[in-house]
Amino acid sequence: MSTSRSQEKLGESLNLVTTLLEKQRIIEALTHKQESKNKELIESLVHRQNLALLHKKIRDLHPADLTHIIEVLPPADRLVVWAELEPHHGAQVLLEASSSVRESLVAATERPRLVALLAQLDPDDLAYVSESIEPEVVAEVYRSLDAREQSVFRSTIAYPDDSVGHLMSPECVSVRDAWDLGAALEDLRRRAELPPHTETLFVVDARNVLRGALSLKDLLLRPPSAPVSAVMSTDVLSFTPRERASDAARAFERYDLIAAPVVDERGKLLGRLTVDVVMDFLRREAQSEALRRAGLSGEEDYFAPPWTSARNRWLWLSINLLTAFVASRVIGLFEGTIQEIVALATLMPIVASIGGNTGNQTVALLIRGLALDRITRANTRHLVQKELVVSLMNGAVWGTVVGLCAVALYGSVPLGLVMAAAILLNLVVAAMVGCAVPLVLHRLGRDPAQGASVLLTFTTDSMGFFIFLGLARAFLV
Amino acid sequence: MSTSRSQEKLGESLNLVTTLLEKQRIIEALTHKQESKNKELIESLVHRQNLALLHKKIRDLHPADLTHIIEVLPPADRLVVWAELEPHHGAQVLLEASSSVRESLVAATERPRLVALLAQLDPDDLAYVSESIEPEVVAEVYRSLDAREQSVFRSTIAYPDDSVGHLMSPECVSVRDAWDLGAALEDLRRRAELPPHTETLFVVDARNVLRGALSLKDLLLRPPSAPVSAVMSTDVLSFTPRERASDAARAFERYDLIAAPVVDERGKLLGRLTVDVVMDFLRREAQSEALRRAGLSGEEDYFAPPWTSARNRWLWLSINLLTAFVASRVIGLFEGTIQEIVALATLMPIVASIGGNTGNQTVALLIRGLALDRITRANTRHLVQKELVVSLMNGAVWGTVVGLCAVALYGSVPLGLVMAAAILLNLVVAAMVGCAVPLVLHRLGRDPAQGASVLLTFTTDSMGFFIFLGLARAFLV
Repeated sequence: MSTSRSQEKLGESLNLVTTLLEKQRIIEALTHKQESKNKELIESLVHRQNLALLHKKIRDLHPADLTHIIEVLPPADRLVVWAELEPHHGAQVLLEASSSVRESLVAATERPRLVALLAQLDPDDLAYVSESIEPEVVAEVYRSLDAREQSVFRSTIAYPDDSVGHLMSPECVSVRDAWDLGAALEDLRRRAELPPHTETLFVVDARNVLRGALSLKDLLLRPPSAPVSAVMSTDVLSFTPRERASDAARAFERYDLIAAPVVDERGKLLGRLTVDVVMDFLRREAQSEALRRAGLSGEEDYFAPPWTSARNRWLWLSINLLTAFVASRVIGLFEGTIQEIVALATLMPIVASIGGNTGNQTVALLIRGLALDRITRANTRHLVQKELVVSLMNGAVWGTVVGLCAVALYGSVPLGLVMAAAILLNLVVAAMVGCAVPLVLHRLGRDPAQGASVLLTFTTDSMGFFIFLGLARAFLV
Repeated sequence: MSTSRSQEKLGESLNLVTTLLEKQRIIEALTHKQESKNKELIESLVHRQNLALLHKKIRDLHPADLTHIIEVLPPADRLVVWAELEPHHGAQVLLEASSSVRESLVAATERPRLVALLAQLDPDDLAYVSESIEPEVVAEVYRSLDAREQSVFRSTIAYPDDSVGHLMSPECVSVRDAWDLGAALEDLRRRAELPPHTETLFVVDARNVLRGALSLKDLLLRPPSAPVSAVMSTDVLSFTPRERASDAARAFERYDLIAAPVVDERGKLLGRLTVDVVMDFLRREAQSEALRRAGLSGEEDYFAPPWTSARNRWLWLSINLLTAFVASRVIGLFEGTIQEIVALATLMPIVASIGGNTGNQTVALLIRGLALDRITRANTRHLVQKELVVSLMNGAVWGTVVGLCAVALYGSVPLGLVMAAAILLNLVVAAMVGCAVPLVLHRLGRDPAQGASVLLTFTTDSMGFFIFLGLARAFLV
């Protein structure tokens, strides 16, 4: 029994693999430099021994750990390990890797090996990875499937990425409502193996319509003569393939589900959704959200070539430059005023910066609220009013503080007053725009995390400069 | 059977509750205005009928749904619903609510009712909520527990918030390694009920030391005469109470666990950790991370009074103002230069802004990498080099673009060259600081999400102004 310390074990495996790869690199460097036949032979033996050790180490790892190791290795090392994997391991790694890493592996794999790997996958998993793979390769693997597998494949790719249908697995155990527990038990015993996470069996009628759920616990503890329909629970939460995966994930969290049935519109059992798939989905969502807010596509490979990474960031950079230019043109309108009072140039970034930061707090609160369904039509007005009041309070307090600093620095009371008023007004603008942007994006069916910050910062910068320099021109010049 | 549509059902419940509360408010307004005895009597009857309806509706809801409804209601409505809850429901809501909402409920509850509610909780759950409750109240409930419960309570509060010990539950089913399956089955039948998520039974020896795990599936499918020790799996991942909850959560995700045993340092079974608790933990972490990045404490109640919310945001605001002031003083050093070439004031925010945005992309990538253990000592150099190369590429491309725009706007080639050089240099600064800040915070054992952005923006603003205005003074004046 391996008691605990999964982290440590994984760290050790990673170190060992890295060391083996390092040795290998030294050997390769040596063989490259020293051309003597004899030397080469010896090195090649050591090399082979080393690879054999790597091969053995890799064979014993859990696929999830293997995937992790492959993802943290730089590209050259990654491919050495990848080449050593046996087909069933390789297939699992393809399945578990992030899409950018998966694509780098697929690109480095000869077609016959790739076909052999993919043939190891369940048809629903094949459908899941098929986006990263050339259509002809997928077609070749598809032709090797039997009719039932082909139909599972087809129905899985038919559903969009973020739907229950895309994540569900057809692999589930059902029993008939007309049976007694003894017959159900008999049926289970005929199966060699139950799929993981089978805490509950689904109960269907003769037409395969879902009627309820029977826990293994009840099957164990109740008398074999009891009818399934009397023991089963009928209050089962089920999903349809068209439902959004994020709604299903929220239900899993809320009701602590392990596995839930997926049914078609007539209630017929199609498959099931399990908590491990839901957790993976939630993790991918959370990660990609954090990156998308910084203007990165969800899945950048840490070891993609710099040129690819540079271009990945261009869309965001160009939007950012465009908004910065517009804000800069706002300043341009007041160049005459700045020439007269150069302190304005020094102080104006403070007004813009404090607006952007408080506005981003409001944006973060609203995005979280929308993601958790905490923001409803009924309480939106209450929330917006509250953010407005908070911004007025903060504007009054911090506007005064900054205004006094400006007076101390430049000895001009009117300048301090303009500064204080500009901060108060810009905080109000920030609160209003910080509420409006996520709410509007959400109502338009867009993702509020993507783009909210750019729009907000654009407004608080431009308005901050405009309010501050405009007040200065009106009252100071 | 309730087929699907959990979201819709929840929405309906929320609407119904809101409508009932709305009616109630109208009735209260009426009774307040119209003082005639007769009128009052009628209203009071309607009022009572209305409350009874609310009470009935609430009684049938799942505790998770009730908690959700309570969290989205504004404070006054929240307390009306809260007052209607029966003790066992109220206890579940206290357990599931976010800590800020929990505190608002506790503050509004009379001590006897609070004690009655808390007495409904399991001792480990009581320990979990006890932070939000006055020590004397907790002590009163504690005295009503039996000796075993008291010991569970004490050991749970002894572990820090983010440890396995704090999240584990003592409620788990174990069987003896010396038994056969028939005896194990017999033992299970003697229990009235198994705890949820019991897909697997833990196998212990005579000294309660964990020896393996026995799945219900094997218990069902293997002959009753088989010895437990022959059927059980010995490769069980277990945790110790002192391990970090986030490490355990990562193991749950990686190995698709449903429940895992928690053992003390001698291997004795203490309890278990289940996937529902782990999912809650992960969700809380993900949420609070997003808010902490915007400088908010993890758990702001949407309906906290504005004054509380305003003060919650002060620490961040004052840090932000301080850094903005420093950046502004950098500009102050160059006021003479700006007075000569006022275009510098107009263009300088572009240099600062593009630096901040690209730096934040680097920060987001590194924080995600650190959170997922993708960044190791071995690959850090590779990553930093890559970010540097990316920033040089982007600096060259976008520096040229912006430089050309500056030339077009102000007709000065030297100004365009200074602008291009400043952008290139500031992007390099942004990449280096964007890598360094999360890595250093992480190595110091701090949370890289908190504070990384402030430090980064501070540097890219100050350095952006300094580089641009410095180059301008050197080459343009």
